[in-house]
Formats: sequence, C-alpha cells, structure tokens
Amino acid sequence: MRISVAGCRMSLGALLNGLLVSIIAALLWKHSKLSEHATMLEEELHMTQQSQEISQAQIDYHLVLQALQEHGTRMVCTGKMHTDRICRFDNLCYSSEAEDFVFFHSNSSVMLPNLGSRRFQPALLDLSSVEDHNTQYFNFLELPAAALKFMPKPVFVPDVTLIFNRFNPDNLMHVFHDDLLPAFYTMKQYLDLDDEARLVFMEGWGEGPHFDLYQFLSTKQPLLKDQLKNFGKLMCFTKSYIGLTKMTTWYQYGFVQPQGPKANILVSGNEIRQFAKAFMEKMNITRVEKADKNGGNLEYDKESERMDEYIVLFSRSTTRLILNEAELIMALAQEFQMRVVTVSLEEQSFPSLIQVISGASMLISMHGAQLVSSLFLPRGAVVVELFPFAVNPEQYTPYKTLTSLPGMDLHYISWRNTKEENTVIHPDRSWEQGGIVHLEKEEQERILASKDVPRHLCCRNPEWLFRIYQDTLVDIQSFLEVLKEGINSKSNLKKGKAASTVHPGRVREAQCQTYIQNSNEAKLTVSWQIPWNLKYLKVREVKYEVWIQEQGENTYMPYILPQQNYTFSENIKPFTTYLVWVRCIFNKNLLGPFADVLMCKT
Amino acid sequence: MRISVAGCRMSLGALLNGLLVSIIAALLWKHSKLSEHATMLEEELHMTQQSQEISQAQIDYHLVLQALQEHGTRMVCTGKMHTDRICRFDNLCYSSEAEDFVFFHSNSSVMLPNLGSRRFQPALLDLSSVEDHNTQYFNFLELPAAALKFMPKPVFVPDVTLIFNRFNPDNLMHVFHDDLLPAFYTMKQYLDLDDEARLVFMEGWGEGPHFDLYQFLSTKQPLLKDQLKNFGKLMCFTKSYIGLTKMTTWYQYGFVQPQGPKANILVSGNEIRQFAKAFMEKMNITRVEKADKNGGNLEYDKESERMDEYIVLFSRSTTRLILNEAELIMALAQEFQMRVVTVSLEEQSFPSLIQVISGASMLISMHGAQLVSSLFLPRGAVVVELFPFAVNPEQYTPYKTLTSLPGMDLHYISWRNTKEENTVIHPDRSWEQGGIVHLEKEEQERILASKDVPRHLCCRNPEWLFRIYQDTLVDIQSFLEVLKEGINSKSNLKKGKAASTVHPGRVREAQCQTYIQNSNEAKLTVSWQIPWNLKYLKVREVKYEVWIQEQGENTYMPYILPQQNYTFSENIKPFTTYLVWVRCIFNKNLLGPFADVLMCKT
Repeated sequence: MRISVAGCRMSLGALLNGLLVSIIAALLWKHSKLSEHATMLEEELHMTQQSQEISQAQIDYHLVLQALQEHGTRMVCTGKMHTDRICRFDNLCYSSEAEDFVFFHSNSSVMLPNLGSRRFQPALLDLSSVEDHNTQYFNFLELPAAALKFMPKPVFVPDVTLIFNRFNPDNLMHVFHDDLLPAFYTMKQYLDLDDEARLVFMEGWGEGPHFDLYQFLSTKQPLLKDQLKNFGKLMCFTKSYIGLTKMTTWYQYGFVQPQGPKANILVSGNEIRQFAKAFMEKMNITRVEKADKNGGNLEYDKESERMDEYIVLFSRSTTRLILNEAELIMALAQEFQMRVVTVSLEEQSFPSLIQVISGASMLISMHGAQLVSSLFLPRGAVVVELFPFAVNPEQYTPYKTLTSLPGMDLHYISWRNTKEENTVIHPDRSWEQGGIVHLEKEEQERILASKDVPRHLCCRNPEWLFRIYQDTLVDIQSFLEVLKEGINSKSNLKKGKAASTVHPGRVREAQCQTYIQNSNEAKLTVSWQIPWNLKYLKVREVKYEVWIQEQGENTYMPYILPQQNYTFSENIKPFTTYLVWVRCIFNKNLLGPFADVLMCKT
Repeated sequence: MRISVAGCRMSLGALLNGLLVSIIAALLWKHSKLSEHATMLEEELHMTQQSQEISQAQIDYHLVLQALQEHGTRMVCTGKMHTDRICRFDNLCYSSEAEDFVFFHSNSSVMLPNLGSRRFQPALLDLSSVEDHNTQYFNFLELPAAALKFMPKPVFVPDVTLIFNRFNPDNLMHVFHDDLLPAFYTMKQYLDLDDEARLVFMEGWGEGPHFDLYQFLSTKQPLLKDQLKNFGKLMCFTKSYIGLTKMTTWYQYGFVQPQGPKANILVSGNEIRQFAKAFMEKMNITRVEKADKNGGNLEYDKESERMDEYIVLFSRSTTRLILNEAELIMALAQEFQMRVVTVSLEEQSFPSLIQVISGASMLISMHGAQLVSSLFLPRGAVVVELFPFAVNPEQYTPYKTLTSLPGMDLHYISWRNTKEENTVIHPDRSWEQGGIVHLEKEEQERILASKDVPRHLCCRNPEWLFRIYQDTLVDIQSFLEVLKEGINSKSNLKKGKAASTVHPGRVREAQCQTYIQNSNEAKLTVSWQIPWNLKYLKVREVKYEVWIQEQGENTYMPYILPQQNYTFSENIKPFTTYLVWVRCIFNKNLLGPFADVLMCKT
C-alpha cells in the first residue's frame, strides 16, 4: 500500500512530470513555430521595407554597381519646356572632379525627353523655382557606361533624393516663396519623396540662417553641394528627382520686367494654408481655433474672445527702423483696445515667432522679408505693410499679392510715409544697405531730390536700395486713419465672403428648335437643363449665358438669361444655320464650361 | 528514512516539478513576449503593406469615407499647359449619374494648379496622348464635401489608377503610338503606377480587337467607362493619375496641318526599344540575339547566320492587297537567298507574329497600321513600305519616322506603284473603305483622273481613302531595284554607324589675354581645356567653335578650330571689349554647351 502510495505518489509525480514535459514540448514546438513565424515575418517586413523605403535597405554593392554598368542612367521627365520640367532619374551620378552630374549611356538607358543638343538651349531644366534664370540651369555630362571601368568606384546614395537650388537662402521671403513651398508641393507630386527623402541643395551656398526651416521638409539632414565631395569622387543617386514645381509661386522679382505678381498665378490660399498647417505641425505649434471657443455664453465668449485678440508688430532692429515704435504701440493699443505684441526675427526663434503670429488679429510691419510670415496668420486677420518715403506700395507687392490670394482670407492694408521730414536717410552706408556715396555726385543729387523711386529691374538699383533702407518716424494720425479706413472696407468684405468657389458644371440636354414665320422672319428656341452640381448647392444667383453666331460670321450675339430656355426672334433669319453655345454662371463671376455647340438650322 | 527518502523523492519530484514549472513559466513568458513581438510584427507588416500597396489592403470603409468628407479631393499636377499636364489625385470621384468626375472641396482640399474658370479654356488636360484634340479633353465637376451627405454612399477603388482615353483602339498603329507607349512611360514617371495599377479607359469604346495588348501594361484587368456604373452611383478613386505623357509620340495625324512627323520629336529609338523589350517579355518572346551566335568558327557562323536570316512579308487579307504576293515571295527568296515568311494580323495571334518579326532581317508591307510592329524588329533590319498608285510616300510617314528615329537602327525603304495599269480600284465600296460613288459625278471624275492625292487634313478625305484602299500588282523589277539600291546605301550607312551619341561637356578654364600692338591693332588670345568627359571617350574628330562679338554689336564672327587656343588679330581693335563664347563639337554634329561668356578688353 505504501509502495502503491509511493508508486502512486511517484506515478503522480511522473504523471505530473510527464504532463509538464509534454507541456514544455508543446510549448517548445509552439515556440519554435512562433519563432519561425516571427522570423518569416521579420524577413517579410524587411523585404517590404526594403522595397518601400530603399533608404533603410542595406545595399548590395556588387548588385547596384552591376545594375549601373548594365542599365546606365534612366531619366523620365514631365513638362514640355525647360521652365516646367521635373525629371526623375535612376542612377544619376555626380562627379566631384567635374563638379557636374553624369548620365551614363548604355543599351538600356532611357532619356525622355531625348533632346540632343537642344538640351543646351538653354538647359534641360531650371534648378530653382525662379523661371528661366541663367544662373539656375541644370544639365548633365554624358559618358558611356563602359567608361565606369576607368573611373573611381562610385559611392551609392540609397535615399530617394530631391535635388534643387535654393534661390536665396539668406532671405526669409525667398526661403518660403522660392524654396520651401515649391519643395513641399514637388514632394507631394511623387509618392517616394516622403519624410525620408534626402534633399540636396546645389546652389553652392552654406547652410544659411534659415537652415532649420529646410530641415522641416524631411527627417533626413539636407546635403549641401560642398559636402558632396566628401562622399568620394563619384557618387550615384539610386533614385532622384531634379527640379521644383513653379505652381506655388506668386511673384516675379523683376529680372526681365519690373517686379510684380506673376502673370499667371496658379496657387490659391488653400494650398498656402495647407502648407502652413503642415509646417506648424512640424514646429509643434497648435493654433487655437477661434471657432473652438464658441459654445457657452455668447456674450461672455465674445468678451473673452475680444480679450484674447492681439496685434503683432514686427520690429526690425538694425535697418529700416520704425523710429517711434513705442508711440505706435501705445496708439494701437488705445485705438483697438488690444494687446500689442512685438516680435523680431533677430531676437527670437522662428517657431516662437510663428506661435505668436498664428493667433494674431493684425500683423504690422515695415516692408521686408519677415512679412512672408503672414502666411501663418489666421483667416480674417489684417496685414499692414509700411513703406518708407518715396517708395510706392503699388510697385512692391509680394505680400499684398500673397495676402490677397483667393482663399487666404486676409485683409491687406498699406501705409506709406509721405512726409520727407519723417524719414532718416543713410547715404554713407555700403551700397548693399542703400548707401549712395559711391555714386557720381550728380546721380546722388538726383536721387536725393526724387520723391518717388521710378520702376526698375532687379536687383541693385541704388535709388531703390537707398529709399527702402530709410528709417521712418510713423505719423500716427495718418497711420491710424489708413488703418481704420481699411478695416471698415474689410468688414464689408467679410460680409461678402461666404461665397462658394464651386464652378457650375456644363448645362445638360441643351437643344434648339426653330420655326419659320415667313420668308424674312424665323424663331429659334434654345432650352437646357441646370448643371448637375447645382442641385447640391445653394447658389445666390444662377444665370445662363447664350452665344448665338450665324454660321460663317465672325461675331456672335451674347445674352445673359435667368431661365432655362428662351426664344430668340431678333436677327434670326430663315434657312440659316446658327451655332449656339450655352453656359451657366454662378454669382456673376463663376463661369462654367460651355456645353457642346448646337447647330440650329432655321 | 523512507519518509526522508519519500521526502527526498518528493522534494526531488517537487524540485523537478518546480523546475519544470519555472521552465514553463519562462517559456510561457518568452512565448508571450514572442507572441507580442509577432503581433507587433504582423501589425507593422500589415501597416507597411497597406501603405505600400493600398490595392491589397482591406479598406476601413468608415475611415476612408471620413477622410473624403474631411479632406475632400487633392490634386497636384505637373506641366504648364493643358497639353502637357498630368495630374495626381487623392479621392477623385466619378458620378455615373453625372457621367463625370467630381472634385470635392473642403478646407483641406488641394488644387494645384488652381485655375479658376481658366480650367475650361479649353480644358484641364488632354485625356489622350493626341495633342489638344477637342474630343479628348478632361475636366471635373466641383462640389463642396458637405454635399456628400446628400449623395449616394461612395464605393472606393483602392487600386492606384491610371485614367486616360484610348485614341483609336481599333487600329494597331494608334494602339501602340497613342496608348501603349505613352501609358508605359507615364507609368515609369510615378513609382506607384506599377504592375498592380488599374487602368481605366474613358473614351467610351468597347474592349476592341487589341484589348490583350492593353492587358500587358498591368496585372489588373483594365476598366472601361461603361463598366464604371456597375460599381455604384458614386465611386471614388483613392489614388489616381489622369493623363498621358506626349513625349513618346512621333507623329501628328493631320488635324490642323497635313499629317507628318511631330515638329519636336522627344523620343529616340532607345526608349522605343526599351518598351519593345519589356513588351516582348510580357509576351514571353525571347529574341535570339545575333551577337550571341558569334564565337566559334567565324566562316561557319557567318554561313549559319545567313541561313537563319529571313524576310517577313505582311499579308493583308481583305483590303489594300498585294495581288501577286506569291510571285513577290518567289522573287525575294531568289534575289536574297533567304526564306520569306508571310504573317497576317487577321490570321495569327499578336505574340506569334511578333515572335517572327523580332528575328527578321527585312519586313515588307503595304502601308498600314500593321507596320507599327517594326518597333519589334532587331537592330539593322530593313523595313520596306509599299504605297498604292497616286499615294506619295513622302506625305504619309508614320513608319518612316519611327524606323528612322536615332537609335532605332533600322533601314527604311519605300516603294510606290507608279503604273496605273497595275492598280485595282474599288469605287463602289463604302466611303470608309475608299468608295467614291456617294460623291458628285464631277468630283468622282476628278479623283479618277488625278495621279497624286493632294495634301489634305485628317480624317475623311475621300480621294485619300479611295487611293490608299486600292489593290496593287507589284512590279517585281522596279520593286527589286528600289530594294537593292536602298540596301546598298544601307551598308554605307552601317559603316558610318558606330558613332557615339555622347555630347561634349563644357570646355573648362576658358580665358582670354589681350595685347595692344598700336593705336589701330590689337590681339586677342583665347585658350581653354578639353571638356571633362573627353578623356573617357574615343572621339574621331574633336573641334572647337569660338564666337567673338564686339560688345554692343549684333553680329559675331564664328571660328571652327582644331586646337585649344588661338590668337585672333584680324578685326581686333584696341580699347574695345569683346564677348567670347567657346564650345566643343564631336564628329561635326554633336554640339556641346557654350562655356560662360568671356569679357575680353583689349
């Protein structure tokens, strides 16, 4: 019994042990299966990541070199002219010895477009977003892939790379307008130009004072031209894009005609605001949305909202000064019963500055690059730009143009110093800061006597530099008057705002019927259905435009009609063919497309 | 003792058990860790795959709908004009009720370019690769995203989609030239337009006779416009591209001027051959490379190569016949001592036809769409195009242009029936097949009497159709003469071939020195270094072009020089500034870029 007990106990122990062992075995088996599964998953993940973001892949040097030697370089571009071309390359190389890019030809290289020597007339593409500027051209050298045998072994850059020229990285307006906005939207055009993309700046400058802003475009450190030689004599970009979109720029700097808005602006405030939103996220700035605060007691909220509103005054600390800044701040605070906050590019970080600007009701600044920060203002804010004596605000409008883009929903006001006694000139400074003493006496005198800088080309007009670098004592009374006047017209504008920007679709089922009255008179009835999208819209005013042209004639008769059909009898002849176009118009200015032309025979 | 033994045994058992338990615990812990790791990996893999190839992802309907409602549609385009624009969309929708695409506006929608109603002048972009054709325009309707609440629930298409119009899917030339080549290279421009992309054909035609060729572009079944309504009233393409590159087309069909090569051809034979290679891989055709056969006995190989060579004769079985095909085949076989293989679009599959063509030494065919298959010929082959009576080969050159593209390395010969007695006319057929009985008597007589179709616009010129649809009895003697003559000039051409297509780089270190001889005479020495890429190249002839312009003058003196420096004394005046440009030229016609202009003051 005892034995049996012991046996029992033993068998229980053995049973337990056996059980545990089999659990362990099962677990081990499961473990090994799971581990296998995990290994497979890891592998799969690795392969997936590798193909997805080649930048994280460890490259097989032998393989990529072989690919270069066999396939050479491949280029596929979009755009018809050098001014609107962006090119995608596989295996474009850069020789630091030649200080130039190299395209390797092989039997399976691709060059689209294949321009021959038209590639040099004047270039393959513009490397910066500034159009057709002769210091900003891109081209490459050509070599047969066979030449690789005689060249230094290439270093491969596995990152997807965006290569371009910064136009003027020292100047904040240029940084945003020429580089950041174009790069941001160029990257949106190509799936693989993501957060992990590598930027390469080929203009040859150093980092510059705003390098941190460029770093927001991707998580990888941008490379400068000068750094490329550190990577070896020949470096090959596995996947790269060259060029920048010009679709986001709104201003031309006066290289071929005096500066002004671009003739054909293709960007609206929506796209600018999308960019600003993305950039603020990168800077960890959260905008306090005004709308969020409404909810409780309306009276109280309005009051507290009012208390929260503030004016931002941009202070420049070295040149182009507002000499009575303190007086101006006092006057503003009194007039608008708002806090006035002073900001300065020289004295604070850009993110902290944007944090302040992004909540401001009004931004006031002397003309200058810092005003590009208007693009971070909340909708409905006012931008007030001050101009020194003898500078005509109508001729220098980068910020007026920006703030007036449809969808920016900002209100722009300019003030100009008209009193010569309120200006302080600096003729003795260096020419870059507006000095004129290096000029001939006669020219100096002419400039000093002139009350208005004449229109001029970029970039070194001494009269312009002399005047724009003046310091100004702001005449408070005239300033407040301009401001109040502007803001009154603003509230009118605000009321008129809510208007939709949706264009009408084509009118549907357009048709004509004709009736002959007698040998001299006929009638023509044209009818149509409303555009398809109208039924989903509330439009204040819907009208239709009808054009009638006698076949073979050059002129047409235009009619604006409120209804969906009309019978024309004036000037309608029997046995004649009329061409009829119909389109819809929303709120007087939103034109739809014409429906297909009708051929109506009386 | 027993107890102690039992105790010992027990404690051993307990120990063992404890050990096993702790192993299990450890294993379980490890298992749970591993399982966690695996879960994380799975998740990561899923997310990665999801972001990489959204087409395989199971979409979270609620999430994507919310994204559409909040973000609306986003569009970013490349290209400046509607004729060279390709647009990328997030969440572009198609309403089968409106039979149109819909762009949903929200606060965060993006529309680049934002053209306003310029979008209708005349269109946002060309949907086919045929330039500015008014039946091929693309536009969309606009709605606020808020309207989605009142609309049928959308169906989402998670595939990356390429949307375009096929121009004329019934005709093989059009299929390749207008659709396949442009689609192939449009897909090369965008990383996500890969093998898994979905094509959507919006021209509204049925599949057409060459649908299998379109299926080679991706592994997914293309959708036709008519099929879209099957997916619901509103379908939204998560990611789509609209439009086709025009960079690969070489011919204009005569819509605004008589047909002929495009004014500005941007494609070379390399790109066409890359396309052909990829397509042949899809068709499982492997080309027997001539070069592979060399190696052993040269004499024998040459002999066996000769034996392998063959001529392909395209046979049309219904219209535009060669009436003495058998006689022609006999004559060719005899003349060239080669096999003559007959192929026919009507009687064999396209891949089997290309298998034959891809190894041919010569392709002979009556003018017609089937000749586009020349792009599958091996390098060095001869293309012979036959033209019926009264049709001038110089005026209908889609195949001559194709085969003559640099890098196609084909030799083109045309033959024209000049003997009216050898032509068979078909005036009684339908107008599409060249019948003319529907025309007025006088016009019929004029056409019958004319010996040459005058230049005309596309597409329904009855005289052209009448003449091109004639059957022809080929005059063997004249045909063989044209052929032999052409082939002789071909071998000359072949000898001249090996020439590189690499352009010279910029000359380096260009500089000038000046010397004043006396008050009337001066000298100007210009010197420079060879282009960087020259040292890696064997170039037959390197020359330099120097342009000298007196500052302020409009004309310049051009010089072609063999050496790297030259002293100019003729027409060089003292105290004058000269502008000097220098560039390198390889083999008389490969021009390099000019170096930066030199300012040389005597």
